[in-house]
Amino acid sequence: MIRHYPNQGVSLMDFFFNPRGIALLGATADQKKGGFSILKNLMTGFEGDIYPVNPRYSEINGIPCFASIAQVPDPLDMAIVFVPAPAAPEVVQACADRGVPGVIMQCAGFAETGKKGKLLQDQLAEISHKTGIRIWGPNCMGLVDAVHKKVFSFVSPSIWDEGLLPGSVSLIVQSGMLSAGFLMDMMTRDKMGVSKVCSIGNKVDVNECDILEYLLEDPQTAVIGLYLESIAEGRRFFEICKNAKKPVVVLQGGKSDNGARAAMSHTASMAGNSAIIKGALTQAGVVQADDFKQMMDFSLALSLFPNTPKHRPGRIAIATFSGGAGIVSSDFLERHGLTLADLSEDTHALLKDVFPEWMPASNPVDLWPAIERIGVDKAYGQTLEAVCADPGVDAVFLHAFVGGLVRRLKLQPVVETARKAGKPLFIWLIGKEKDAQDFQEEARNLNVPVFRELSRAVECMAAVLS
Amino acid sequence: MIRHYPNQGVSLMDFFFNPRGIALLGATADQKKGGFSILKNLMTGFEGDIYPVNPRYSEINGIPCFASIAQVPDPLDMAIVFVPAPAAPEVVQACADRGVPGVIMQCAGFAETGKKGKLLQDQLAEISHKTGIRIWGPNCMGLVDAVHKKVFSFVSPSIWDEGLLPGSVSLIVQSGMLSAGFLMDMMTRDKMGVSKVCSIGNKVDVNECDILEYLLEDPQTAVIGLYLESIAEGRRFFEICKNAKKPVVVLQGGKSDNGARAAMSHTASMAGNSAIIKGALTQAGVVQADDFKQMMDFSLALSLFPNTPKHRPGRIAIATFSGGAGIVSSDFLERHGLTLADLSEDTHALLKDVFPEWMPASNPVDLWPAIERIGVDKAYGQTLEAVCADPGVDAVFLHAFVGGLVRRLKLQPVVETARKAGKPLFIWLIGKEKDAQDFQEEARNLNVPVFRELSRAVECMAAVLS
Repeated sequence: MIRHYPNQGVSLMDFFFNPRGIALLGATADQKKGGFSILKNLMTGFEGDIYPVNPRYSEINGIPCFASIAQVPDPLDMAIVFVPAPAAPEVVQACADRGVPGVIMQCAGFAETGKKGKLLQDQLAEISHKTGIRIWGPNCMGLVDAVHKKVFSFVSPSIWDEGLLPGSVSLIVQSGMLSAGFLMDMMTRDKMGVSKVCSIGNKVDVNECDILEYLLEDPQTAVIGLYLESIAEGRRFFEICKNAKKPVVVLQGGKSDNGARAAMSHTASMAGNSAIIKGALTQAGVVQADDFKQMMDFSLALSLFPNTPKHRPGRIAIATFSGGAGIVSSDFLERHGLTLADLSEDTHALLKDVFPEWMPASNPVDLWPAIERIGVDKAYGQTLEAVCADPGVDAVFLHAFVGGLVRRLKLQPVVETARKAGKPLFIWLIGKEKDAQDFQEEARNLNVPVFRELSRAVECMAAVLS
Repeated sequence: MIRHYPNQGVSLMDFFFNPRGIALLGATADQKKGGFSILKNLMTGFEGDIYPVNPRYSEINGIPCFASIAQVPDPLDMAIVFVPAPAAPEVVQACADRGVPGVIMQCAGFAETGKKGKLLQDQLAEISHKTGIRIWGPNCMGLVDAVHKKVFSFVSPSIWDEGLLPGSVSLIVQSGMLSAGFLMDMMTRDKMGVSKVCSIGNKVDVNECDILEYLLEDPQTAVIGLYLESIAEGRRFFEICKNAKKPVVVLQGGKSDNGARAAMSHTASMAGNSAIIKGALTQAGVVQADDFKQMMDFSLALSLFPNTPKHRPGRIAIATFSGGAGIVSSDFLERHGLTLADLSEDTHALLKDVFPEWMPASNPVDLWPAIERIGVDKAYGQTLEAVCADPGVDAVFLHAFVGGLVRRLKLQPVVETARKAGKPLFIWLIGKEKDAQDFQEEARNLNVPVFRELSRAVECMAAVLS
């Protein structure tokens, strides 16, 4: 019988995230197989008990292997299932019989493959319904918790090579390979950490609503980003989003006719009417993304500037080294429902000391004449002081150029100025790659978002301010 | 008197691009000044004669310095002027008197600074008009020719550190600092080479039309990208674009009201009605960009796939490792006037051998089941063979994931398959950064564009196919 967890909101799902012991059905010693990767990942980071299950082994990698789930001792709070699809229903039934409260099914070959697979998936649904066992998946990549170093997934163990970067953004992704690709890309390229990445696949039982509710209560999660090909329980989902105390970002896949057809064969999802979904998401206060990296950028920006006061349109002060970049930024502001801040008399007076007499400052503030006159740190520093003190400025957009003749801007003082004033600071950066990487690292340590494309920076501003 | 060049099309401007000797007015030994950077850059790459002009020195860096332009010997085809704005008219008049056919004025302080500067600029216009001397600038960064290693610019000499990467895209940029930033960013981050980068500033005389005409005839230029805050001679510009035998990409700055105001104070440009300009550009067959990096990506893609047959809507075959990425790609196709190719019976028959029976292929082709069955190279290879042979496929969008358990895809065979079939190949890449960089380098050597965002890849497809 399933062990009954008291019905106390989030704790209902807690066996997935904080199990004391995990059984792995489909464990193997074959290093090329996913069943080995899962074991390896468990052994690398998970501090609870690990129970490989496979009648063909007495031990794998030095860990005793069990012939069946029935023989696995306590504590056993969760099982990961990675067996051929036709064997899955029997395996899950055995887990339920053993009293396992939940399984994460990472094997594929279910509804996404057609009729036969759909029948297998229906059997899983029935077992869940009858026994109460919670089923996460199938056809998913499982769970990665970068904060607590729990990798319940067949993602390549090479993910550990450069460390799992912890962060405060959690993800719910209805796609297996993508969530793994995401993780590697974000951590090694953007050096962006995450909290929990939940790959949910075909959602035979556990769906985005269940996990979203959990993550909204999770102290290690500040923002939740979702990639969804369908919304399982529309009303419930929109209600959860509407009442969410944390920002929620959604990338909806299958918005076009072709995309919707593709979604059908991917996770057997009915995408639904995208225009209606879009409207409902907007009403529920959800930030909507169009692309994967954009979803991550939105989520990161929202995590860095929580509880930013809203102003419509958000009024931006631009401090730039390049008139051209200031102009194109202004064009983007207008497109994304933001506007150039109208600097006050006081601000103009403060800026008078910074700029040469022949080049009075206006917004966008073209700093080049000031940089030539008083140096890069003073020019940016005094300009930031002035615009951050202006009550008509909601956020600051700073453009930086590294690798030229001019010394690199010292970031800390300008970041502190903006922070003290409570004004979100966004940075656009171009220049020599080596210097740019140093700059980005400094910015990461100071929790300031840096962008390499103007458009993306402005999109993120809009996400934070609107 | 100005030496008269025969009026033979491009040769009219050739003294700017291929001078035998260059005078530098405003040369200095002060290493922190632009007048030194220009000299240093000339000395590093320019093989013609260099004549520094400054009465305060007898030599700079071992090169004899002249007290005035009048004393500079032949051959003297061009002068670079980097003196304080108030001294500029006199200096340019002296150049005209000496018979110099053209000057590149890199100093600032003219119309962009207000009334006084406007008067100085008007004087320059008058000198040009009266004497026939061609004036490039002022308020610009000059010219960088990465193919011939000619840097006629105060851009930081650190630009040479990693070599100037040659390429076949040339740029015309109405912004000084940006063109320098561009260059550094492209070459060190994207490892994208360029041919000629022309920063044209206030356009007192030489404008985008003059340079565009030159570059359209330039054998080292395949595509021209322009960042413009104004169009000096609308009718001429649109006629040139309409008759252009090479792709032209335009990023128009100052499209919004705020942006247009900012453009006024940057290069004293009247941006004009952006909607009218947009329509005219479309009619003239110009590809239009919104952001700097996007303009570069468009230009590069167009240079890699010249003379691609147009089909509306362009029909794309997607080969992906991730169903989710295939779905979101399909959504982007529809948004950018492209469509998913309807694969033929023959193609489906060919793909039958690649895919497991339970997972018949459709477009987007989700390769994962095939990869598991026959390995990454065969799965991608046979799929590419099949879709490239399909007459209903105009281009192929390949998704690659590196750094996982699966071996990295060998690019060369798939690239050759696509090339033989005459189908443009676009790649989207995610994964571990180190592996991704190796992959990108291989792709660069094979002249295949690789993108890190789905949206940008699809935008570039649309630019090439539409």
